[in-house]
Amino acid sequence: MRGLDGVYVAETRISYVDGEKGRLWYRGYAVDELARKATFEEVAYLLIHGKLPNREELEEFRSRLIAARRIPEHVIEVAEKLPQNLHVLDKMRVLVTLLYGWYGDGKPRMLTSKQVDAKPVIEAGTGLVGAAPRLLGIIAALEEGRELPSEKFELDSHAAYTLYALTGREPSLPERDAFNTLLILYADHELPASTFAAMVAASTLTDIYSAIDAALATLKGPLHGGALEEVAKMLLEIGDPENAEKYVENVLSSGKRLMGFGHRVYKTYDPRSLILKKVASIIANAVGGEARRLYETAVAVENAALKRLARKNIYPNVDFWASVLLYALGIKPRYYTGVFAVARIVGWVAHVAEYVARNRLIRPRALYTGPLNLPYLPLEARQ
Amino acid sequence: MRGLDGVYVAETRISYVDGEKGRLWYRGYAVDELARKATFEEVAYLLIHGKLPNREELEEFRSRLIAARRIPEHVIEVAEKLPQNLHVLDKMRVLVTLLYGWYGDGKPRMLTSKQVDAKPVIEAGTGLVGAAPRLLGIIAALEEGRELPSEKFELDSHAAYTLYALTGREPSLPERDAFNTLLILYADHELPASTFAAMVAASTLTDIYSAIDAALATLKGPLHGGALEEVAKMLLEIGDPENAEKYVENVLSSGKRLMGFGHRVYKTYDPRSLILKKVASIIANAVGGEARRLYETAVAVENAALKRLARKNIYPNVDFWASVLLYALGIKPRYYTGVFAVARIVGWVAHVAEYVARNRLIRPRALYTGPLNLPYLPLEARQ
Repeated sequence: MRGLDGVYVAETRISYVDGEKGRLWYRGYAVDELARKATFEEVAYLLIHGKLPNREELEEFRSRLIAARRIPEHVIEVAEKLPQNLHVLDKMRVLVTLLYGWYGDGKPRMLTSKQVDAKPVIEAGTGLVGAAPRLLGIIAALEEGRELPSEKFELDSHAAYTLYALTGREPSLPERDAFNTLLILYADHELPASTFAAMVAASTLTDIYSAIDAALATLKGPLHGGALEEVAKMLLEIGDPENAEKYVENVLSSGKRLMGFGHRVYKTYDPRSLILKKVASIIANAVGGEARRLYETAVAVENAALKRLARKNIYPNVDFWASVLLYALGIKPRYYTGVFAVARIVGWVAHVAEYVARNRLIRPRALYTGPLNLPYLPLEARQ
Repeated sequence: MRGLDGVYVAETRISYVDGEKGRLWYRGYAVDELARKATFEEVAYLLIHGKLPNREELEEFRSRLIAARRIPEHVIEVAEKLPQNLHVLDKMRVLVTLLYGWYGDGKPRMLTSKQVDAKPVIEAGTGLVGAAPRLLGIIAALEEGRELPSEKFELDSHAAYTLYALTGREPSLPERDAFNTLLILYADHELPASTFAAMVAASTLTDIYSAIDAALATLKGPLHGGALEEVAKMLLEIGDPENAEKYVENVLSSGKRLMGFGHRVYKTYDPRSLILKKVASIIANAVGGEARRLYETAVAVENAALKRLARKNIYPNVDFWASVLLYALGIKPRYYTGVFAVARIVGWVAHVAEYVARNRLIRPRALYTGPLNLPYLPLEARQ
């Protein structure tokens, strides 16, 4: 009963995971083909609107994303006041909440008790897809004492802008392509906890800012998006390929979780992870030094883990190799979950818009296993 | 499939709703007896810790709640910067997020991949129960240009403090008792969308601040906590008992939802609503004027609605009479959902602590109904 394992809670036409064969489709398109050929903007349009855009649609969509990088001054003022010890995801939540009212209110419109108009969700949601890289960039720049990233940037692709906003420097073409691939692979994945939390929130007909806030709160956990950061920390702690075997042995024999391994749905190698392993290898080898050593440590951890876990159908998940790639791209681990969010907001918006259009409040039951009809004793008589 | 109607997603020993008979128990105690005899603090302790406190336990618990009213200065500084057009629940979310790190980090501790320690959740969660009235009071005072509510207040009951923080004045004894009853009746209710959202978030082992943030985002919706505010708006719009019949007829014949009526679980009169109707009657009659007229309008709406809806097992829910009571207590509708949150944080903390202690990541499936293996066309070739 716990965990809703294998329980179907909605129909969807957005993404499909075949966990046995290790395949993933977005709106019917194989994700490996999209990762090779498409831009993140095309994939975002596809997931939200249900079809690949033609040139005109793509241009309009891109200009909406770019326009949304403009953040009102009062949001930046609050960002400057946020305490340093907050997690990046907490800061993103606060700033997303503050954008409420800026791109429309994002509330589904209840026409009758059964019919709902999801257009305001898509409109405000698209604004959040566009705003997210700037928000993350503002958070990073304030933490690092850099100048805030400009809302204008000559390379106007979403991947290039996100890398620029996060690091303050212009990415190379291979970096930009690698990051574009990563963003596409993280854009949606059916109903993980964060997407489901967004749907639960939205089923009360709350606004899309609140639904995405719930998703960010959920993504933060180390059993979900937080794993991306934990993998890098683990690999840095192992430090060298030679230490991998012993580390893996220790973690598994003490019943702890090996970060970056295992997935609720995939019982084979995660197709996203296969692609990211290749991309990470290319970038890590080009960069060399620490990045290459982290990559080689990851290879050694994977080999040591598969020896023990493959027979239990436990494989590296998407976070394992994504973490290595993000490290090679020069991004600090504390921002990894934020990068995940920048990509996944697309999936959150798409699933919320799809669900509320034929809305039903999500309200499950819990099985009561306690006593009943206990006698109430006054305070003086209690043990 | 949609809505998880009647689907059991966890076991619980916290609360039990008998929707057929219209009964509700907290930890095995009938809620009507608790509402008559207990203080909110006792009920909060009961829900979170599983037993009614003895004198010593109650005193310790109360002093923790009172201590938590002390909010760090930087949180108040951000509160002062929040834009006026944000909803009260949005502001509460931001301030709750900012308290992260103040009362412990509230993260469940993963000992092995299966065993989790929920103590930090209960500790930080209790802090949030205590802090919530002050946060709501700070928000209200800033909106109304009043002096911020003091963290100290001679009447140290939670109900009295919340009323004082919200209105800036000392409540009378009947007001305080009526509000205590309302807080008790709102403290928990098994698995509504907000509690479930908190559990979904927490199942990733995120912190309790994030989980409560997800719950607040969910509570805001008009099909959940937002209904409380909508009921008052509706009654004020109707304005007079004489207009009730026609208003109800219009809403129902156009297929719209009548705010404050119907409940997923109760198929009879909500027991909480029965109690609150009585309490609202007493306070509204004592206050007179607008409050009494709103009460009488509510009686007329109830009569008109029951004529049409009782045969469909649709009755007033808790929000209907609570809204009338809150109006009679002189609280402005924009704060009603915040009052709901002040009470329900108890249930959120209790359910999260219970769930994560035997944690399983909540990760459902969606049934894919779209096409597969579509051919990818380059941009130029798309319609």
